[in-house]
Amino acid sequence: MRFDIISVLPGLLESPFAHSILQRAQKKGLTEIVVHNLRDYATNKQKSVDDYPYGGGSGMVMGIEPFAKCIEMLCAEREYDEVIFMSPDGERLDQGIANELSIKKNIMILCGHYKGIDQRIRDIFVTREISIGDYVLSGGELPAAVLVDAVVRLLPGVLNDETSALSDSFQGELLDAPVYTRPADWKGHKVPEILLSGHEAKINEWRYEQALERTKKRRPDLLAD
Amino acid sequence: MRFDIISVLPGLLESPFAHSILQRAQKKGLTEIVVHNLRDYATNKQKSVDDYPYGGGSGMVMGIEPFAKCIEMLCAEREYDEVIFMSPDGERLDQGIANELSIKKNIMILCGHYKGIDQRIRDIFVTREISIGDYVLSGGELPAAVLVDAVVRLLPGVLNDETSALSDSFQGELLDAPVYTRPADWKGHKVPEILLSGHEAKINEWRYEQALERTKKRRPDLLAD
Repeated sequence: MRFDIISVLPGLLESPFAHSILQRAQKKGLTEIVVHNLRDYATNKQKSVDDYPYGGGSGMVMGIEPFAKCIEMLCAEREYDEVIFMSPDGERLDQGIANELSIKKNIMILCGHYKGIDQRIRDIFVTREISIGDYVLSGGELPAAVLVDAVVRLLPGVLNDETSALSDSFQGELLDAPVYTRPADWKGHKVPEILLSGHEAKINEWRYEQALERTKKRRPDLLAD
Repeated sequence: MRFDIISVLPGLLESPFAHSILQRAQKKGLTEIVVHNLRDYATNKQKSVDDYPYGGGSGMVMGIEPFAKCIEMLCAEREYDEVIFMSPDGERLDQGIANELSIKKNIMILCGHYKGIDQRIRDIFVTREISIGDYVLSGGELPAAVLVDAVVRLLPGVLNDETSALSDSFQGELLDAPVYTRPADWKGHKVPEILLSGHEAKINEWRYEQALERTKKRRPDLLAD
């Protein structure tokens, strides 16, 4: 699976893609993540990619020409399943969307900045707009990294322990049960005895009850669906 | 405002904190972001920070001792307003939480990995658990970066154009209206004429209508509140 990310700050994405699961997935050849510097596609002498908004108001707007040039170059090389714009007014990313995207082949992601991108880019090129949550960030780079991480860890072979992804929160309908590891007693704070019992059926039952209780308390909406 | 982030992958956070608004805010002395390597606080010879879960099951669990050692060291240096654990089962980050955190002084953020962290860390040290959305990621680092970005851009003096943050989506009750910049005509795709009219009152009216329409279509829940 290939990701092409268009950004005015490609350096911001360097370390997130060079560590942990995203690094391993690339090394194993399970995914390819290419970050394109939007400034390389600027059409004016100053290499600027933003300009004042028509109609006035604060903030700068990213123009259509550099994006169009980069997108058209990429689309001439291969077919894209989705051209995604990361935007707080897009559809909210959830595990279902991550699952859905994990079976695609080529995904392009556009990162906005400043006051936004020229609406015509969204109208003409973008097939899907995704938000990682109801909050405002400095740009689309961190959201793009979040999206890529959520999707790549679902690709077959990426996680060492296949069952690990399946038992995560949001893959089922319940949040995770509490987990514990050594020491069994830390300054008087003890691990629940049931987990030390070795009685698998009872442990599973306890975990299910704990997961249910946590979900009821923290996210009753997940149970209502 | 100071952030202390405890992570097993401090390198992952390097580039997000070294660019754009987060870089400028640190250079201006408006925020200090310190990332601590959890492995430096490992108590065993192998410098391992995770171990098998009590009760069996897949995945590794991050143990209490390294976290406790790092947290206790930090708490001896200064008082923390919040010790936040980034977790998919925490309260969902929104602009209100970002606003609320932006008036704090010292915030500690714990990043989990693998199957999770020993529940006793959450019970004993954590004052608040925050999720950036309903999806599973490889670790708490990207969520920590997202949280820091959402908060820091609200600090006075961080954004060049003060009004820019105030008119963002989610600061009011409406999503943003579409924005446009030059050229006015791109291969036949034109900017709405009203924006070229110079008639400020009519432009504001158009923008309000567009914002309302977009919100109705994309996020009717924001209007229902």
